[in-house]
Amino acid sequence: MDDRHFMNIALDLAAKGEGLTSPNPMVGAVVVKDGQVVGRGYHKVAGESHAEVNALEEAGDLAKGATLYVTLEPCNHTGRTPPCTRRILELGVRRVVAAMKDPNKKVTGGGAEFLEQNGVQFTAGVCEGQAKKLNEAFIKYVCSGRPFVMAKCAATLDGRIATRTGDSRWVTGETARRFVHQLRHRVDAVMVGINTIRNDDPSLTTRLPGLQGSDPVRIILDTHLSISPDARVLRQVSAVPTILVAGSEAVGNKKRALEKSGAQVLEVSLKNDLIDMKALMVQLGAREITSLLIEGGSRVLASAFNFAVVDKVYFFYAPKILGGDDGVPICSGPGVELMSESITIDDICVHRYGDDVLIEGYVT
Amino acid sequence: MDDRHFMNIALDLAAKGEGLTSPNPMVGAVVVKDGQVVGRGYHKVAGESHAEVNALEEAGDLAKGATLYVTLEPCNHTGRTPPCTRRILELGVRRVVAAMKDPNKKVTGGGAEFLEQNGVQFTAGVCEGQAKKLNEAFIKYVCSGRPFVMAKCAATLDGRIATRTGDSRWVTGETARRFVHQLRHRVDAVMVGINTIRNDDPSLTTRLPGLQGSDPVRIILDTHLSISPDARVLRQVSAVPTILVAGSEAVGNKKRALEKSGAQVLEVSLKNDLIDMKALMVQLGAREITSLLIEGGSRVLASAFNFAVVDKVYFFYAPKILGGDDGVPICSGPGVELMSESITIDDICVHRYGDDVLIEGYVT
Repeated sequence: MDDRHFMNIALDLAAKGEGLTSPNPMVGAVVVKDGQVVGRGYHKVAGESHAEVNALEEAGDLAKGATLYVTLEPCNHTGRTPPCTRRILELGVRRVVAAMKDPNKKVTGGGAEFLEQNGVQFTAGVCEGQAKKLNEAFIKYVCSGRPFVMAKCAATLDGRIATRTGDSRWVTGETARRFVHQLRHRVDAVMVGINTIRNDDPSLTTRLPGLQGSDPVRIILDTHLSISPDARVLRQVSAVPTILVAGSEAVGNKKRALEKSGAQVLEVSLKNDLIDMKALMVQLGAREITSLLIEGGSRVLASAFNFAVVDKVYFFYAPKILGGDDGVPICSGPGVELMSESITIDDICVHRYGDDVLIEGYVT
Repeated sequence: MDDRHFMNIALDLAAKGEGLTSPNPMVGAVVVKDGQVVGRGYHKVAGESHAEVNALEEAGDLAKGATLYVTLEPCNHTGRTPPCTRRILELGVRRVVAAMKDPNKKVTGGGAEFLEQNGVQFTAGVCEGQAKKLNEAFIKYVCSGRPFVMAKCAATLDGRIATRTGDSRWVTGETARRFVHQLRHRVDAVMVGINTIRNDDPSLTTRLPGLQGSDPVRIILDTHLSISPDARVLRQVSAVPTILVAGSEAVGNKKRALEKSGAQVLEVSLKNDLIDMKALMVQLGAREITSLLIEGGSRVLASAFNFAVVDKVYFFYAPKILGGDDGVPICSGPGVELMSESITIDDICVHRYGDDVLIEGYVT
């Protein structure tokens, strides 16, 4: 039984917090004494106790002289909860193994230093790649103050997200669509453009059995605040708000009317008649939106790519062909002139969902 | 050691004839005596001896009382070579195992019947799926008289085969492009439209180390015979011809001039101002073209799908995004109105070539 073995258990525990810990990271921890796991814990929901504390509590007296495996360097500062490093010292833990140091430049290494100064052995970097992947959204957010942005689309093999009449029900099959609901559960917010609201009138809620109340914030790019008050996103019951993003000149009476219906209106400057996506991401970050899933349509996707705010793509391809170019494209507007100027995607992963194919990757 | 084991050896032998046996199928055979392989053979090139005969020759006297495994029912008729069934009888083979019966309805079961009538045990259907896949082009051709048609494209993740300036060098990486050369080696003919000739001036030859002289016939859809006499496909040295497909009204002086340069001109009727692809496939079948790879561009691909002549697709997706809709689409022209009317692709297989993704499947 080596460090990696126990860290994998801690990583599995951490993942249980998926979709519930924001703006905190997912963290898991196990306490190991004489080769036996004697305590397990994870960060269940923002505001509640940290993974280390939960695992140490389960271990009780057995924590004395034990090793603590934790997927993130223990905190050394008082936030909503007291610093975990104190508790580790108090209980007499002999060694702490962390998968990664705290990505926040202001505090990184602080927990490690405090522990070592107080005679606790400290090791970092065990299963670091997995830990970083698990919290890729959190890491982007704490390092930049802006959300981790994912762009999703579902297209036919010939690259169309809807037919010329706007028909898109359905491009992909049920298992792919269920995965999209899992993505929505994971993120703090989803975003679509006003055309998608007009054409599809989606609810943009998370519909997964046993996962109620995990809706993401709904963000609608609506430069001229032209949304109909009858749109489903404005009428439905949901624990989280719908945010309408408008160009500064569009607000006024419209804004007050829409706010009465419960929506929030966010004013963002325009750049070449388009919402400045970079400025928008700063504003969303300030609202503690750490992760954002852009679900289309063509104009919003193209805008997100051209403003260079996308971190990761989820492109689904369904085994069907429309056979023409009059359907709705994946991106609309002007593209690059040369193939060598295209936006490149790295760390490609391919998944199958029934007969649909998902290509996942990171914008370089 | 069961029948499947030896049939797999025969299938591997058969595949060695890839790209060389047309209009015949690829066939492999092994002779097994007392659990030992005592003879191996495959059909090396059209016009030369059949797989069974080659395997029996290697076995010599050991063929007496042996079992012959062959990937296709032995022929019972005199073609370019005498019937294989006679040779099997002459050498005293005790049992024949075939992966599949002859797909040609006029002769299917004839070889089996003749052998059984003469006291040779006969079994069919061992590894039948693999055998049918190996010879899918041959089977389509003998059953329909028309070539097995594959449509290939290489697109960005947002579904563009070139930028707005026509730049397509390169969409996919080197390993994907090498695979396309292998596809060209496998087929009897490749087809592109006149726009591809104008924009890219391709050579459409097979460039693979150690595989010289295996160029496919080049077919150019050129409704108005507007090809430049300087086009590379008309000037290069190649063992096989370039065929220009024109609408009937276009021929005349142009035809004679082009034929002087060594090209062949095929007249095909038009349907809504487009070359009638169904009629064209009948004409290509009559010329013993058993398999055809359509390599684009957008108009030819769309036309092939809309005339319903495509059997199989090879769609490559490269990890890049153009970010707009002004690049060249995969298909051009009018597409279907409803998602439910789209052309569906079945038996999807996904492959990776470096960072490029290939989605392969069959038109249902």
